[in-house]
Amino acid sequence: MANDGVFDIAKRRGFFWPSFEIYGGCAGFFDYGPLGSLLKLRIEQTIREHYVNNEGCMLIEAPTLTVEQPWVASGHVKSFTDMIVECSKCGEPYRADHLLEERTKKATEGLGQAEIRGLIAEHGIKCQKCGGALDEVYNYNLMFRTQIGPGKNKVVGCMRPETAQTTYMPFRRLFELGRKKLPMGVIQLGRSFRNEISPRQALIRLREFSQAEAQFFLDPEAKSKHPKFDSVKKMRMTILSKHDQVKGTGPNAMEAGDLVKEGLTTEWIAYFLATSMEIFKRMGIDGQKLRCRQHKDDERSFYSSDTWDVEFMSDVLGKIELVGIADRSDYDLTRHQEVSRQDMGVNIEGRKFIPHVTEVAYGIDRPVYCVMESCLKKDGDRTYFSFPPAIAPYQIAVFPLVRKDGLPEKAREVYQSLREAGFYVLYDEGFIGKLYYRQDEAGTPFCVTVDYETLKDGEVTVRRRDDQQQIKIGASKLPETLGRLMKGQMDFSKAGKRVK
Amino acid sequence: MANDGVFDIAKRRGFFWPSFEIYGGCAGFFDYGPLGSLLKLRIEQTIREHYVNNEGCMLIEAPTLTVEQPWVASGHVKSFTDMIVECSKCGEPYRADHLLEERTKKATEGLGQAEIRGLIAEHGIKCQKCGGALDEVYNYNLMFRTQIGPGKNKVVGCMRPETAQTTYMPFRRLFELGRKKLPMGVIQLGRSFRNEISPRQALIRLREFSQAEAQFFLDPEAKSKHPKFDSVKKMRMTILSKHDQVKGTGPNAMEAGDLVKEGLTTEWIAYFLATSMEIFKRMGIDGQKLRCRQHKDDERSFYSSDTWDVEFMSDVLGKIELVGIADRSDYDLTRHQEVSRQDMGVNIEGRKFIPHVTEVAYGIDRPVYCVMESCLKKDGDRTYFSFPPAIAPYQIAVFPLVRKDGLPEKAREVYQSLREAGFYVLYDEGFIGKLYYRQDEAGTPFCVTVDYETLKDGEVTVRRRDDQQQIKIGASKLPETLGRLMKGQMDFSKAGKRVK
Repeated sequence: MANDGVFDIAKRRGFFWPSFEIYGGCAGFFDYGPLGSLLKLRIEQTIREHYVNNEGCMLIEAPTLTVEQPWVASGHVKSFTDMIVECSKCGEPYRADHLLEERTKKATEGLGQAEIRGLIAEHGIKCQKCGGALDEVYNYNLMFRTQIGPGKNKVVGCMRPETAQTTYMPFRRLFELGRKKLPMGVIQLGRSFRNEISPRQALIRLREFSQAEAQFFLDPEAKSKHPKFDSVKKMRMTILSKHDQVKGTGPNAMEAGDLVKEGLTTEWIAYFLATSMEIFKRMGIDGQKLRCRQHKDDERSFYSSDTWDVEFMSDVLGKIELVGIADRSDYDLTRHQEVSRQDMGVNIEGRKFIPHVTEVAYGIDRPVYCVMESCLKKDGDRTYFSFPPAIAPYQIAVFPLVRKDGLPEKAREVYQSLREAGFYVLYDEGFIGKLYYRQDEAGTPFCVTVDYETLKDGEVTVRRRDDQQQIKIGASKLPETLGRLMKGQMDFSKAGKRVK
Repeated sequence: MANDGVFDIAKRRGFFWPSFEIYGGCAGFFDYGPLGSLLKLRIEQTIREHYVNNEGCMLIEAPTLTVEQPWVASGHVKSFTDMIVECSKCGEPYRADHLLEERTKKATEGLGQAEIRGLIAEHGIKCQKCGGALDEVYNYNLMFRTQIGPGKNKVVGCMRPETAQTTYMPFRRLFELGRKKLPMGVIQLGRSFRNEISPRQALIRLREFSQAEAQFFLDPEAKSKHPKFDSVKKMRMTILSKHDQVKGTGPNAMEAGDLVKEGLTTEWIAYFLATSMEIFKRMGIDGQKLRCRQHKDDERSFYSSDTWDVEFMSDVLGKIELVGIADRSDYDLTRHQEVSRQDMGVNIEGRKFIPHVTEVAYGIDRPVYCVMESCLKKDGDRTYFSFPPAIAPYQIAVFPLVRKDGLPEKAREVYQSLREAGFYVLYDEGFIGKLYYRQDEAGTPFCVTVDYETLKDGEVTVRRRDDQQQIKIGASKLPETLGRLMKGQMDFSKAGKRVK
């Protein structure tokens, strides 16, 4: 399964491409084209519907441009920084720690500015672009800043670097709306921004990106037990614990229940690891390439008692973090209470406390790429995306065999009936071989062709993307049959007469 | 129908509220709460699905943070300004023309900086907050600016003030993807930003707002004829033409066909006026309060040959522009060609030309408000939102009559079956009267109650929001029956046994 073609197909078939190309582009910004924006929309829907329907989350939506105070409270103003070093000649900026790691192949975790500067000098590292000498190392804040309002009364504005704080700010309002009960789940989807020093790898490290972050507010006395944990207890996952990483062992296949039993994490975190794995697999991401990695003690944010990532091991781009699941304790709400002087405490059964938060933070752009890499298949000369029907930009494409004799009109009728049944359907015309080829690269699971026989006996030809098998079905049965095929409730070869 | 309660209910029931409240807020920013974000989502879906499915648009998604060049090309860097005047004492900023209009009740259109400054002095207008003297009038650019990238190599970044230019930039790529055919439609939904001087009226004038802008690229030689114009020809609309406004006549009820016949506008614009009216009415916006107003010659952008707005005449907030439909000619693509030096021309049937654009630009936040104002109904003591089922945050709410004896479990089963059938469903528990009250204010069209009889004979009680009528139906028939009721294919009183 060669995967190096994802970017070529992405560009050629309009999944995504670099933004502002006509003006020379700008690293870290990508446009989603017609197929990519539909794929992204389905991925967002999958996550939103899971958290709203299955986890009972409230959905909210806040602005991406905010005042500065929440980021003072969260620590971003002070600590959301990378160490940077620039070329004294051409100005090329580098993330100092990454540059040092690349050139020395040694870990830089925990090193300070002075140490990194010293090591850069010691190894004689120069600008990789022009060979110029490198300047001093300094801390660079990754928030985009702007000014809100005009003239003398203007205030500092920040483009949010995460949705989380914009969900914590209205916590009291949400708690009232949720009728003052815990646990309480809230999910927000939307854009966030990080002014990366040197963004690379297309959708993986963007300066403007999409997120879906769910926050679960918990009673700290009840936070070890998740009410639905039994439903995931037996799910097996590939686990790389912090102990494994220190000892150089693992990863190991483990059941979610054993993760908790062996004291590696809480039921809340294990629950979301297991459900996230399921969500990713349902999207078509290769489960064999997914693993749950716990953050080591020296890598974790100081306020978090436990953090895990689900990572995709890409053939092309290496390790890609898809979701971060963290016990954020009462840190954020406490900080907002301190800075805003608004009471963030709740009073439940006579106890007053500040809720703890378990956060489930998905990137949305990264799954788009990982779904594409996982689903790109080669079958002889043929290339196709094996997107599951729930994720595919289009689930069905409808064509007339030729552009005359009433076939386009009949095909449009079939198209219309499938759309009314709620499917994502595309209508197209042209040479049938070329149309199939296009739909293979769009990852459309089923193609329906209307031919002269359709006019006589009402039967259409259904072609399955994955093996190009074809069957004949009565057009009137299409919505029900395709619905069952997509849900895996029916065997394709038994759904109609086989076409040779 | 008193409508002054929209903001109270909006806040109390969690439709929307001012952002960053714990930090004192900031004018022009609003959060959508659980009900509001669902309502907004449905409105976005309605517009997206119409343009993708019915108008054959490609969907794309670009970053909201961009480099500066596109806004040099579009003219925003130079001309996207308001005239501002600040108080010399307290710094309070005013839009100079609005302040003058408010105080003198005279129109200021076409007046320059010096004239406005003169009139402010002449009328002795002072700061309305502290009575201080006002400073000079100056032009203030409404784009939020930031810096992309670090250090010496950083570039100016702009938060886009509209999606349109981010759709025009990749025009050549889209034209290839659309197989080099015109007309070609492209729609983009997303956030845009305007650093308003003094934002007011909640969702109506935000500094960060959501848009859905469709761009139709046309062959200028074929741009008078819209291929589907016949389908809207007979639609009646309230029309206020530019002539009416100059003469002080109108508005008049007119058919779309007559708009074109009388030379008031093109088929393309008339088509989108008519379809937009239909879309708004389907969302539940009161058609009696909608009108199509043509921009006067001195109000239109210089590059546009014709611009129309669909306006909602609010009882509370006055005139609200919901969509702007404009013939933008070849201005934008020509400007991008000039500034980027990339060829934006197309070659069709031996003719080389730059396509013309007809733009249909919806705000998304404003329809949220207008739907709420239109649907807020008082019925004695009862207050409810009469949202159409396609727009309602929840279409169905399911309750157990009491929280014991297996009723919650049975109600959850019913809830699950409705969710699987594709409805937006809410499960809730509590005192039945209170639950109905809550769902009325959430605008949920149907409530389903599971009681002791359900356990015996499988029948549930369905309550219709609009008149509180109740019927008994077998739970197994719910998905089909509710589906037909929502589509208006069935009479409520005949759908089951009437409950007194």
